[in-house]
Amino acid sequence: MLCHGLSPRSLFFSHIYTPDLHFPLPMYKALLRQMSTKKPVTQPAWHMPSAQTPPVLRINNSLTRKKEPFVPISPSRVSWYCCGPTVYNHSHMGHARNYVCSDICRRILKDYFGYNVLFVQNVTDIDDKIIIAARQQYLFEEKLVKKHQELDAALVEEGKRFVSAYAQANLAGFEGELADLVPFMDSLDVPALSAAVPKLPMYVAALRKAHDVVSRAAQNGASLAEFMAAIEDVAVPSLDKEFGHTVTEPEIFKKLPAFWEDKFNKDMERLNVLPPSVTTRVSEYVPEIAAFVDQIISNGFAYATDDGSVYFDTVKFENHPDHDYAKLQPWNKGSLELIEEGEGSLSTQTLKKNAADFALWKASKPGEPSWDSKWGPGRPGWHIECSVMASDILGSTIDIHSGGVDLCFPHHDNELAQSEAYFENKQWINYFMHNGHLHIQGQKMSKSLKNFITIEEALETYSARQLRLVFAFGYWDKPIDFKDSLVKEVQSFESTLAKFFTTIRALNADYRHSVSEGKYVSLKLSDVEKALLVQLETAQADVHAAFCDNLSTPVVLRVIGDLVSKANTYIQGSATGQNELRIEVLLEITRWIVKILDILGFEARPDKLGWMDSDASDSAGSASKEDVAMPYVKALSQFRDEVRNLAIGKADASEFLRVSDTLRADLINLGISLDDRPNGGALVKFLNELEKEEFLKQQQAKEQQAKEKELKKQQQAAANAKKEEERLAKMKIKPEELFQDKALYSEWDEQGLPTKNAAGEEVTKSMRKKLMKQYQQQEKLYGEYLKSQSA
Amino acid sequence: MLCHGLSPRSLFFSHIYTPDLHFPLPMYKALLRQMSTKKPVTQPAWHMPSAQTPPVLRINNSLTRKKEPFVPISPSRVSWYCCGPTVYNHSHMGHARNYVCSDICRRILKDYFGYNVLFVQNVTDIDDKIIIAARQQYLFEEKLVKKHQELDAALVEEGKRFVSAYAQANLAGFEGELADLVPFMDSLDVPALSAAVPKLPMYVAALRKAHDVVSRAAQNGASLAEFMAAIEDVAVPSLDKEFGHTVTEPEIFKKLPAFWEDKFNKDMERLNVLPPSVTTRVSEYVPEIAAFVDQIISNGFAYATDDGSVYFDTVKFENHPDHDYAKLQPWNKGSLELIEEGEGSLSTQTLKKNAADFALWKASKPGEPSWDSKWGPGRPGWHIECSVMASDILGSTIDIHSGGVDLCFPHHDNELAQSEAYFENKQWINYFMHNGHLHIQGQKMSKSLKNFITIEEALETYSARQLRLVFAFGYWDKPIDFKDSLVKEVQSFESTLAKFFTTIRALNADYRHSVSEGKYVSLKLSDVEKALLVQLETAQADVHAAFCDNLSTPVVLRVIGDLVSKANTYIQGSATGQNELRIEVLLEITRWIVKILDILGFEARPDKLGWMDSDASDSAGSASKEDVAMPYVKALSQFRDEVRNLAIGKADASEFLRVSDTLRADLINLGISLDDRPNGGALVKFLNELEKEEFLKQQQAKEQQAKEKELKKQQQAAANAKKEEERLAKMKIKPEELFQDKALYSEWDEQGLPTKNAAGEEVTKSMRKKLMKQYQQQEKLYGEYLKSQSA
Repeated sequence: MLCHGLSPRSLFFSHIYTPDLHFPLPMYKALLRQMSTKKPVTQPAWHMPSAQTPPVLRINNSLTRKKEPFVPISPSRVSWYCCGPTVYNHSHMGHARNYVCSDICRRILKDYFGYNVLFVQNVTDIDDKIIIAARQQYLFEEKLVKKHQELDAALVEEGKRFVSAYAQANLAGFEGELADLVPFMDSLDVPALSAAVPKLPMYVAALRKAHDVVSRAAQNGASLAEFMAAIEDVAVPSLDKEFGHTVTEPEIFKKLPAFWEDKFNKDMERLNVLPPSVTTRVSEYVPEIAAFVDQIISNGFAYATDDGSVYFDTVKFENHPDHDYAKLQPWNKGSLELIEEGEGSLSTQTLKKNAADFALWKASKPGEPSWDSKWGPGRPGWHIECSVMASDILGSTIDIHSGGVDLCFPHHDNELAQSEAYFENKQWINYFMHNGHLHIQGQKMSKSLKNFITIEEALETYSARQLRLVFAFGYWDKPIDFKDSLVKEVQSFESTLAKFFTTIRALNADYRHSVSEGKYVSLKLSDVEKALLVQLETAQADVHAAFCDNLSTPVVLRVIGDLVSKANTYIQGSATGQNELRIEVLLEITRWIVKILDILGFEARPDKLGWMDSDASDSAGSASKEDVAMPYVKALSQFRDEVRNLAIGKADASEFLRVSDTLRADLINLGISLDDRPNGGALVKFLNELEKEEFLKQQQAKEQQAKEKELKKQQQAAANAKKEEERLAKMKIKPEELFQDKALYSEWDEQGLPTKNAAGEEVTKSMRKKLMKQYQQQEKLYGEYLKSQSA
Repeated sequence: MLCHGLSPRSLFFSHIYTPDLHFPLPMYKALLRQMSTKKPVTQPAWHMPSAQTPPVLRINNSLTRKKEPFVPISPSRVSWYCCGPTVYNHSHMGHARNYVCSDICRRILKDYFGYNVLFVQNVTDIDDKIIIAARQQYLFEEKLVKKHQELDAALVEEGKRFVSAYAQANLAGFEGELADLVPFMDSLDVPALSAAVPKLPMYVAALRKAHDVVSRAAQNGASLAEFMAAIEDVAVPSLDKEFGHTVTEPEIFKKLPAFWEDKFNKDMERLNVLPPSVTTRVSEYVPEIAAFVDQIISNGFAYATDDGSVYFDTVKFENHPDHDYAKLQPWNKGSLELIEEGEGSLSTQTLKKNAADFALWKASKPGEPSWDSKWGPGRPGWHIECSVMASDILGSTIDIHSGGVDLCFPHHDNELAQSEAYFENKQWINYFMHNGHLHIQGQKMSKSLKNFITIEEALETYSARQLRLVFAFGYWDKPIDFKDSLVKEVQSFESTLAKFFTTIRALNADYRHSVSEGKYVSLKLSDVEKALLVQLETAQADVHAAFCDNLSTPVVLRVIGDLVSKANTYIQGSATGQNELRIEVLLEITRWIVKILDILGFEARPDKLGWMDSDASDSAGSASKEDVAMPYVKALSQFRDEVRNLAIGKADASEFLRVSDTLRADLINLGISLDDRPNGGALVKFLNELEKEEFLKQQQAKEQQAKEKELKKQQQAAANAKKEEERLAKMKIKPEELFQDKALYSEWDEQGLPTKNAAGEEVTKSMRKKLMKQYQQQEKLYGEYLKSQSA
């Protein structure tokens, strides 16, 4: 579109005509006078705005159990150590909760508060659980699966032994007679007993399964594969007991954690958890750990025992005036259960001085991986790894350490003790952040309660976005109950937002389309839109306050939900004529919401008018423009076909054909040609620029031809119509009235056939024959006429 | 990949075998002793980290010409008014510099410092330049182009008159004889004279071109089109002088700015300049402006003149103890040239009191658009619009006002005076930011120097990214010289970064591939990588300091360049075996660089490992599916709208509505919803998967309802039909045959009315009455039947 048909270039010169502007002379003088009254060369005073006290970021610090003002060591940088996974199994919803919440907190510090966060996370790939899992898997494969090619009597016997041993080990009161096993289990009140022995349901399930397959196998009622699968759970403890000490190949203990580390990383990626800045693996830190332990001994807070282990001396540390033991949960210091659990299940005997002392270095027994050290072959204790690795990357004082709340004691308390003993400082960690527990339908997640959900399983039912929303709907440091009502709430919130974004994009496209068509669209804000801007400002202040108040994501999401509802009311108001619709204020609100959601890890679309759809169908990706556009163009073309077909068979529907033709012409400009075909619908073609031009030319020629053809057709039709009209007129004449013209004839017989012509002469024989023929023809025609009338 | 070929499920049970762990009894006692030595229930003291003084953001404030600490009115929000374009022509590199630099500053405040910036920008669509351009274009078209279908002698004569008039008006010393014109121009030392008359080269060029075409036309050596194009520049001043006053149609003065506003917006979009939060158009603010002016009069700082204009009284304002006039450039107060320029070229006469006074409201002469006001028909002065519109959205005190440095005086100084006179406050604007000048190859950009480059032209040679880099390589508040050496520097920087990003992505892909193949890749950082992390930390601190120091983008880019070079050295070191290669530290560096570049408006790729490639912007690649598909879907929707509108007004066109509805239903499967609206066409929405599903469900429910309704209707119709059938059957019965049933009656009178019942008893009187009534009804019914038969 060009204004008034002028070339844009010409507009450069439109300012040439500039009429002269002159002040009368007296004004010059007045101006000079005016200017000389003040010294003109300095600027007047400027008033610095008075600073408002902004809300300060406070974080719930487990070291005080209070929200403390967050003061990082360097002003714009935050060092953060996060306890990573022990990799020997599937990650579950508990992991999801922990790592997604940490991710959200990290993103808020990084992208909302603008800190440069160096985020270190470990991989625990040396651990008693890993050792046991690796050894048992290996033994099952080597000692059972590979040794038996068929399900023979010997294997059935072996199976019976496994069942019996497992039952004796795990079912108190069971005597060992296999025939008694099922009646014994039937007699147990498993649900009631599981309060005391939480794993009992699992033991019983494993035993029933194994016992059943063994019984069936004895009667040839089971396959080898079935047998192996069903026997595995009860077989591995026995195999491990018997052969565990023979497993020495280091590779066996490396392969399993490497596999699960990769799985964990993939789960995290699917949950859109940012990868750590630095990942530290225990297996890559053994020498550093040994050196760290040695230094603690030198500092007087640890001791080696005769069996080649090293323990941390909790009593000595506790009694030192500069130190405190168990800063996080001092009330748990005496909990033997927690202490035992912290030491790992392979620590069967201990030479430690005090019950609360814990292993820094564990002497390895046969069947356990080991590294040489000055204390003999051994491996790192659990807690020491984090102290060493965190310190190696982040130093002697760290801003934030995070982890699940169940790690407080002894793990994190021991980390603190070790590191402060090593550095001889008072405060290794400034802020300890602990993510709250996750419950499933009101109960602790556990395998025995059958509410244990792996991340993989969860992602089959929920999208990563829904899971993240569930976690963000809770406070990071409080328990979350993953229950149906919460999921519903989240899904409704998600759907409200998704609908809002869709509407906004539609309105924006509509606006842009109008502008591109040269329509005038007002942008003027009335009080209604100004009020909306105030709502936005309030929401922004509320979100800021919520983030400052311990990163309160539930409040943030509530504020966003409220703002969306206000914007929706405005949009609805425009549909009902209550108010105008001004696109800019809606876009401003949307972009801000999208920014905040993006900070929380709900990635923004490139146009910032919504979040990225999880199914990724949203991005055109590598597909060509044609691939993307084709389905829509096809729909368009088919609809047009339908309209044409309806119109072609119809009188008084020429406008429909006209708009169909106009559409076809207009589509050329979008690079689409629709070739109408007599059978089947139009053929859709995507044209390139050259083709487009050629097409436009052809179209003009065709239109000309069509016009000419149409004209001819109309002429022919007119001629035909005239003929038919004449025929119809003749049809109505009765045969006896056919020759009544007195200018031709003067006498007729009773049939109405002329006998004499006008001159009174007899009609000739041949003439009579001819008339007779005409008479008969008319008789037929008139017959048809009568028939058509009576029908 | 599964470890040792076992099913992952089996791994859940790997921890069943947990050997018992027992402490010897003395340990229990020692533990209890140990725990009783201190009170265990309270946490030990925590030490709040000591706060470091962070660098504070300072911004060069034109109100003091110093870098002042930036203190916004509300803690997390910044109100910003930016002087927008006067839309009457192509936007040029000067505009690009201004708006890209403002955009960069806005993005830094918003995305680096985390302020919620409300960014208001105006469109000046009422202005003397616009009036002249619109009028001249219109007159050229109407009075010349449309009037001449051939290049005849009369037109040549007219051309000669235009040339002569133009030469006399613009070439001092020229006498008017056309034969003398070329020798006269040849005699001028144009380059030397242009120092005094900057537009002289342009005058001469226009005259030479026009004179040449006129001479050739006199000898039939020129075409009509050629003649018109060449004569235009010299013709329009004369035409305007003669006919300008006759141009009154408001549409003429609206169409041109609307066209150029759209062009400007498109240029800005291509330069990736964020759209304003709120756009204010002068043409939408005339009543508010008049009211604002009136209030200034009431406050005593303005006066109306006899010709219907209103002026600001600079002397009164200057002398008021609470106010200062020309806060930004008090040394320019006396500059008549600047004052004149500010008043606009259509202000030929003035009744103002003081030379420095400026128009708030201009009386409109014939040929100028006008709005009614209490001072008569007129239009807003230039400066007042910004005061009114900025205040309307942002209020009586605004954090930031920005614009090009050449707007300082009088425009921004007058804005300040007006607003402070209106609000009777001391400081309407807290921070005034002025973008420095742009030079091209060392010289001021000007049409006469032939170094005038439109944004469209610039984008043919440079990418939007290169232009943004050029501007970010300079300080926003200092001049930038767009010269070859700078462009080369920018291109080299761009290429270094692009190569770096490509390398990083390749290394990352390589790493991920290795992991997916089960290869062990070490992540352990050595001192080399730790040193790199320190470099990153230093760079982060440097960038923070640079942003704080007046948003110094050149420093930021230098820091990024240095960090890239350090990372490249590390990558090369790994290739030559000097060091290992650890992917994480490289990714950490890259993600941070990409984040900072993204903040500066160099959009990040979705994987955050590079910037978005600019050359991909035209292909479907980076565009969303929605963007690609939208034009086609719009075409479809509009066509459907047309078909519906045609069908709605028409009998016997229900099929068209039906196929329209079917189409709408089918489109849901393509993720498109068409919301039909009573006014205007359907609103096109792109749905995500979730919305699609929900929509389909709703649709099914609706269909079910419709089906049920249809069924009910059919049942009702069947019932009605049956009733009618019965009625018709009964109708045919003659009344005398109505009571012939011998099971009921045994005797009848001559009418056929029963006299005795089946038992031979007399029919009772009341019964007879009843039967009589039925008989009469049937008589009537049968009568109807007979009538219907004979018809």
